[in-house]
Amino acid sequence: MNVQRLDRVRQNLRDLGLTQTVVTDPVSIAYLTGYDNDPMERFEALYLAVDSEPVLFVNRLFPDPGDCVPNVVTLYDTDDPVASLAQVTIAEAPLGIDRTMEARWLLPLMEAGAASSFRLASSAVDDARARKDADEREAMAAASAINDRAMDWLKDQLKTGVTERQIAEALEGEYRHLGADGNSFDPIVSFGANAADPHHEPDGTALEPGMVALFDVGCRLGGYCADMTRTFFFGAEPDEEFRRVYEAVEAANAAAEQVAAPGVSFAAIDRAAREVIERAGYGEYFTHRTGHSIGLEVHEPGDVSSAHTAPVEPGMCFSVEPGIYLPGRFGVRIEDLVCVTEDGSQVLNHRPKDLEVVGA
Amino acid sequence: MNVQRLDRVRQNLRDLGLTQTVVTDPVSIAYLTGYDNDPMERFEALYLAVDSEPVLFVNRLFPDPGDCVPNVVTLYDTDDPVASLAQVTIAEAPLGIDRTMEARWLLPLMEAGAASSFRLASSAVDDARARKDADEREAMAAASAINDRAMDWLKDQLKTGVTERQIAEALEGEYRHLGADGNSFDPIVSFGANAADPHHEPDGTALEPGMVALFDVGCRLGGYCADMTRTFFFGAEPDEEFRRVYEAVEAANAAAEQVAAPGVSFAAIDRAAREVIERAGYGEYFTHRTGHSIGLEVHEPGDVSSAHTAPVEPGMCFSVEPGIYLPGRFGVRIEDLVCVTEDGSQVLNHRPKDLEVVGA
Repeated sequence: MNVQRLDRVRQNLRDLGLTQTVVTDPVSIAYLTGYDNDPMERFEALYLAVDSEPVLFVNRLFPDPGDCVPNVVTLYDTDDPVASLAQVTIAEAPLGIDRTMEARWLLPLMEAGAASSFRLASSAVDDARARKDADEREAMAAASAINDRAMDWLKDQLKTGVTERQIAEALEGEYRHLGADGNSFDPIVSFGANAADPHHEPDGTALEPGMVALFDVGCRLGGYCADMTRTFFFGAEPDEEFRRVYEAVEAANAAAEQVAAPGVSFAAIDRAAREVIERAGYGEYFTHRTGHSIGLEVHEPGDVSSAHTAPVEPGMCFSVEPGIYLPGRFGVRIEDLVCVTEDGSQVLNHRPKDLEVVGA
Repeated sequence: MNVQRLDRVRQNLRDLGLTQTVVTDPVSIAYLTGYDNDPMERFEALYLAVDSEPVLFVNRLFPDPGDCVPNVVTLYDTDDPVASLAQVTIAEAPLGIDRTMEARWLLPLMEAGAASSFRLASSAVDDARARKDADEREAMAAASAINDRAMDWLKDQLKTGVTERQIAEALEGEYRHLGADGNSFDPIVSFGANAADPHHEPDGTALEPGMVALFDVGCRLGGYCADMTRTFFFGAEPDEEFRRVYEAVEAANAAAEQVAAPGVSFAAIDRAAREVIERAGYGEYFTHRTGHSIGLEVHEPGDVSSAHTAPVEPGMCFSVEPGIYLPGRFGVRIEDLVCVTEDGSQVLNHRPKDLEVVGA
């Protein structure tokens, strides 16, 4: 149980005018209690009130939470977990609900009259998770340091005839070799025109001279996620347009990283990147947000997009990943992770970003 | 769009007294429309009414659904997806909600007054998905046929010194080599005492003579999942107790498969397996349900457990996987997939189950 984090969430609850909440996201439960379990389709929840000890509900199929929290309710498959939860909630008070709670639990909980009303209160936990403490920032930096080294290994794999899938499948072993716990998400390896699809899944496409090679990859270390993208050019000198696109993306990435500091809005960081690409004449080919928050999960609440006008704050970590995608031809994306500090920001990736032509 | 499946869901809705429902599970959306997309944290939903054409809500970040459904609403990150959905629902009628819809969408939808009431109606889709049609049964059988062959390959990997993780990481490549699309879940490879934990994650444990080697693995083919378990003994003759445990599990597996037929309850199938293990004196060491339903997902609604007293019906597919786990010593589990037919059932796995001692 992490008392400091629990107290922060309790304070957030009070600020929201709530006295109790239910946390069902297993990552948030691990963050708050240290009990790290994937319950799959079974019910798992942490009941958290401002003035009592938390209660953890766990199916007996999973590891014993031991003394992670003082109160544990062990559920059998034949139990009604919602009824158990409704026994501890205060029926006369509103109840906070986290964003990922599924309808199969939420609707019966409402029907059971477990609270006077049910309010989306994910931000109580999400805001705590968003502001990484010193230990968490160190963990984020350590994961990204391994990712930097993995990118060198990836570059070394670029040989005529190698397939996207071959590299993608070998990466997890390399991450372990470098000391990480594995992938933080399915790696994206895109050659040539495949790179024009930002979410391309690695397939049997073989590398040929004159293709771009885009790697969007991340490892996990001590629970925390890395995520970076580099785009190489393989086996030939790229033409002028490729260079122009690459330079626009590199400048957009730099502009957004430059501007990130406490008090600057997520939207302003998105704007800084987007403006550079628009000025270069490729605005319509930058088809996604500039980035996403990251931490214990690869995507955490908090887009770097025009829709998100809140300011960034110390401890917040997010990706800066502008890209230009020319359908049927190629795509370029350059991504680093950035952590906001007390007086600016720190870029967690140190691998160079200037255009590298490999094996020409 | 699969008109037959949509009509079956519409009929199920009518049987539930509903005229409209929202489907948010991406697997169910793919099952009904053919649009197969993982929206991650973004909103995706299929609105389905009994007397109008379905409407699909998709973020523009993802592939265009084309003509998967006649009506597509494309969402931008700056849109309010819940408000868009509320524009098409009938506010005066109850609205069905599927089990996986998350609170971040459901609570605002309720607040928007999108319907007169909100009812858990997952079964409208889940019941359709549970009754596999002829094509689906064939796909399930084809995936399991590959899994049978993969089990031979796994057995061949058993050599002194090989680690659980080495085998687990190499399996996906072998699946592809055999024609499958990859793993259907993270493979479980457990040596020795690790096999006493039913959910052990493969680690650096090296195989030594005298250890059991348990493989719980599955591939995916054309969207459908395989899942099977075999337990081998390595490098030495097992002792009497191991043989006793193995025979009890094998007999429990056979007894449950024997009894599976239309009209027999899931609970009775669980009972058939459990009774054999209890009679052998190991009842308290069979710590989980006998199985789970399976299809487009590895775990689909419908436990083979004492809590699930509904009868099985033609087209239903589930695992039969009794096990005995002796903490600190070893575990044995034997698992096949079973599909219920019109007059009995078909076991999809054909790999032998008698005890095999490898390399002794």
